[in-house]
Amino acid sequence: MDYKASGVDIDAGNEAVRRIRGLARSTFTPAVLSDIGSFGGLFRLDTGRFHDPVLVASADGVGTKLKVAFMAGKHDSVGVDLVNHCVNDILVQGAEPLFFLDYLATGRLQPDVAESIVGGMAAACRENGCALLGGETAEMPGFYADGEYDLAGFIVGAADRERLITGRGIGEGDALIGVPSSGMHTNGYSLARRIVFEQLGLGVDSHVGELSTTVGQALLEPHRSYLRLVRPMLDGELIKGMAHITGGGITDNLPRVLPPSTVARVDLSRWSMPPLFAWLMGQGRVPLDDMLRTFNMGVGLIIVTSPAKADHVIEELAARGGRDARVIGDVIAGDGPAVSYTGRFPAA
Amino acid sequence: MDYKASGVDIDAGNEAVRRIRGLARSTFTPAVLSDIGSFGGLFRLDTGRFHDPVLVASADGVGTKLKVAFMAGKHDSVGVDLVNHCVNDILVQGAEPLFFLDYLATGRLQPDVAESIVGGMAAACRENGCALLGGETAEMPGFYADGEYDLAGFIVGAADRERLITGRGIGEGDALIGVPSSGMHTNGYSLARRIVFEQLGLGVDSHVGELSTTVGQALLEPHRSYLRLVRPMLDGELIKGMAHITGGGITDNLPRVLPPSTVARVDLSRWSMPPLFAWLMGQGRVPLDDMLRTFNMGVGLIIVTSPAKADHVIEELAARGGRDARVIGDVIAGDGPAVSYTGRFPAA
Repeated sequence: MDYKASGVDIDAGNEAVRRIRGLARSTFTPAVLSDIGSFGGLFRLDTGRFHDPVLVASADGVGTKLKVAFMAGKHDSVGVDLVNHCVNDILVQGAEPLFFLDYLATGRLQPDVAESIVGGMAAACRENGCALLGGETAEMPGFYADGEYDLAGFIVGAADRERLITGRGIGEGDALIGVPSSGMHTNGYSLARRIVFEQLGLGVDSHVGELSTTVGQALLEPHRSYLRLVRPMLDGELIKGMAHITGGGITDNLPRVLPPSTVARVDLSRWSMPPLFAWLMGQGRVPLDDMLRTFNMGVGLIIVTSPAKADHVIEELAARGGRDARVIGDVIAGDGPAVSYTGRFPAA
Repeated sequence: MDYKASGVDIDAGNEAVRRIRGLARSTFTPAVLSDIGSFGGLFRLDTGRFHDPVLVASADGVGTKLKVAFMAGKHDSVGVDLVNHCVNDILVQGAEPLFFLDYLATGRLQPDVAESIVGGMAAACRENGCALLGGETAEMPGFYADGEYDLAGFIVGAADRERLITGRGIGEGDALIGVPSSGMHTNGYSLARRIVFEQLGLGVDSHVGELSTTVGQALLEPHRSYLRLVRPMLDGELIKGMAHITGGGITDNLPRVLPPSTVARVDLSRWSMPPLFAWLMGQGRVPLDDMLRTFNMGVGLIIVTSPAKADHVIEELAARGGRDARVIGDVIAGDGPAVSYTGRFPAA
């Protein structure tokens, strides 16, 4: 018995690594000192750029959105999802990304699929100026169903300590600016899949009139990165706090940036629920509270600013293509940190 | 339908996070600025300690050793495995660990199991002076079999640029010092499981005379960290290069640190094959070449040094409890980087 017979194909792994290597190299910034083949990736920190550098790190997965990718046989967009999710998670603390690493685990490695996934990650890394510094590709027979895989990402960014965005200055009267999401991002897929594939019995290629597209297209829409929109404001005094609206929705994520004894009052009449969420809510008969605690509901990022600066922030976002950002609520005193919803979503 | 009905239990997730939080806090070094609840972990880089800091990062998984943990119902040691594997991967480049993040994915989250896994990671992080800065716990219904999970780790360390260990100075005549492994570490489990559980039909509780212990104990022996043994030598001129012997064995890992046109001549007569590997080889009728390309064969770390300094390195290792380190070969000119084996393992 040899290792290949036991289900692990080192040569296929090496072939995948060869393909991945070129993709990773395409993302390398001048700070990268080594290529992906050594034991660890090397990244030179530009100490001239940071007086008191704080490294901001986050780990994330794509979650069950992967199942939709498996059904559609489309593997590049989940790579984009993963990188952009991670970029946003550290951006809300004021950090710009330095480098990213991935973990890709599968039962039997398919070099084409791995190349597609990593291709998506590399494209998103280039877009965000973030080096794909390394990663682990694991072949684990018996762990994953045929054609399936799991994918995790790890990002490290940096900010000067005095420029970290912590939410500490947030207080009564501050404005909440909602920036549109590009779809479900990477959250709520277990519920959405149950409604769409089990309850309605649709497939990824089913066209849905309400969505003006197929199920697969609507569900796989990539998670957008807010870096380009927000970066120019990281150096100023415009932003008091930011929340990336991921698993748990606005309900669970916005309080993470609020100080004690504050409540975010979110006025649902300020924006329209995107068709995808309205359709899922209607078809699945999902209570609004659950929707708000599961999906981003069309708001992927919330910026907290003083009311006097809200228009300026919205203009800055618009100038970089961040359309439809708007004030969606304010901060009040209360038994928090928590979110209180007012108003109703406008009828479609 | 709500989110819990769809298979994701946010409250169980929050409960797991609560338990994990305390464990993570126990690892925090003074450099950690935030706790695990914010969007990303914050780590202040001590620029006084590094003139020209290079961040060294690595991603790894535990692989199918996890299956043995599932069978044994023992979940703390795989956390130790993961951290120590990562620590060693950046150590061989000269880096000391700063912080670690994990990705834990499961079908249905069991807070007790998660606590046990993270408990192992936290213990290993404390041991290595490395902060468990954050992580992602993902509940993915339909991805993992009941009671199973996958686990990945991400580490970031730092070294001064001039102190990076790159292997560039390695040349003809240099000595190879082998430092004992503590077992299979985290590699070769697909093959070992096939031999032990399928071919021999043993269980984790089966006692094996040749191993003087049970199958589960032998296979789950934690991956050791070499940081404590090697750290005092990172600042000096003793070490030219190091290889962490992971997947692919000495055969695939040692060349990663060798310059072109060098061959590592490894003399198998210099150390005894540990009983676990001898037993697996005999029971599975595995060719020696495959053994050497699959398992660490008792050598978890190889240090390359000039022959004049080999005794000094061995004494330094011994002074910190690193027993049985010894010269196991040398570097010769050849068509490499590659490994050439000479000699035979001594009869047991």
